Amino acid sequence: MGKGTGSVPRVLVPMSEGFEEIEAVSVIDILRRAKITVVTAGVQGRLPTGSRGVAIACDSLLTDELERSFDAIVLPGGPGTASLVEHEGLRAALRRHAAEGALVAAICAAPWVLHVAGLLAGRKVACFPSVEDRLDGATIVYEEVVRDGQLITSRGAGTAIPFALALVAELAGEQVAREVGQSIIFRAG
Amino acid sequence: MGKGTGSVPRVLVPMSEGFEEIEAVSVIDILRRAKITVVTAGVQGRLPTGSRGVAIACDSLLTDELERSFDAIVLPGGPGTASLVEHEGLRAALRRHAAEGALVAAICAAPWVLHVAGLLAGRKVACFPSVEDRLDGATIVYEEVVRDGQLITSRGAGTAIPFALALVAELAGEQVAREVGQSIIFRAG
Repeated sequence: MGKGTGSVPRVLVPMSEGFEEIEAVSVIDILRRAKITVVTAGVQGRLPTGSRGVAIACDSLLTDELERSFDAIVLPGGPGTASLVEHEGLRAALRRHAAEGALVAAICAAPWVLHVAGLLAGRKVACFPSVEDRLDGATIVYEEVVRDGQLITSRGAGTAIPFALALVAELAGEQVAREVGQSIIFRAG
Repeated sequence: MGKGTGSVPRVLVPMSEGFEEIEAVSVIDILRRAKITVVTAGVQGRLPTGSRGVAIACDSLLTDELERSFDAIVLPGGPGTASLVEHEGLRAALRRHAAEGALVAAICAAPWVLHVAGLLAGRKVACFPSVEDRLDGATIVYEEVVRDGQLITSRGAGTAIPFALALVAELAGEQVAREVGQSIIFRAG
């Protein structure tokens, strides 16, 4: 893991057609502000279009990243979550990372992917209201960001910044997370 | 203007190389959730890269939009603001829109563009701390979002969601802004 080892943490962000733009971009932007390496990986192609029509150029294709190891895999939500749920290679990569102690994180509808990968039984989870019923065996918590071991989850686009800052706190330390929060004037008042 | 007329409001978002990703995407995403038409217009080309390396495909080029009329022009910040400041055609379009009663809005460093366009004298403004000294004649207000007539300004990436929701409130009404805020689970707790 990045924290404390001196190495630069590496994070994978899978991006499918229909990803939620604020959720994806808040994670990418804020982690890069914290000097964390973020690899954006398109599921269907290298220029996926989000749920509100914003197309983002990705660094690579998900299929080229699934055999690699990251300090974290972070899943944005949105209608594109359905493609992530169906992606057998991604589910396997998530299980492998969880087993190896990497951070696994998801926001909005994307905790559903972790459920289907078998990673949420008995865990505390935040998610978008519409997917609560799909997460059998998990305990839904109504907080902006919920941490349970190496699992971090969050509720929706409106909680994407605290979600991203929680990832920074884990990967780069609390002090860096505070500095990044200040640099974007988050909850300054 | 869109509010009350039944027509769909149209908003121009100029995107230069080095735009701040969270600021641009929060505005685009949240306005589109409110059924507002958003035209993203690249300054140097149609695939500008933001300040944290995220390249976004724009709808058109800024030069092709400057003669048109919009209900609002919204400027994201970031290091790309310097290109907006130098853009004579954009400054003229901002002055014309302000004179015609359209909404003019800017976040982070971008109120600097409005200052250079001559639109901030005697106005209340929120901005990123680093540009405060450049806004001679304006009154800096330390709130997330500041409204002064048809001018709406905000402080940074961490205030982009309330900024976008304030734009929705003006262009589509308070009720729509509340609904969009709820749909993204913004400050639900």
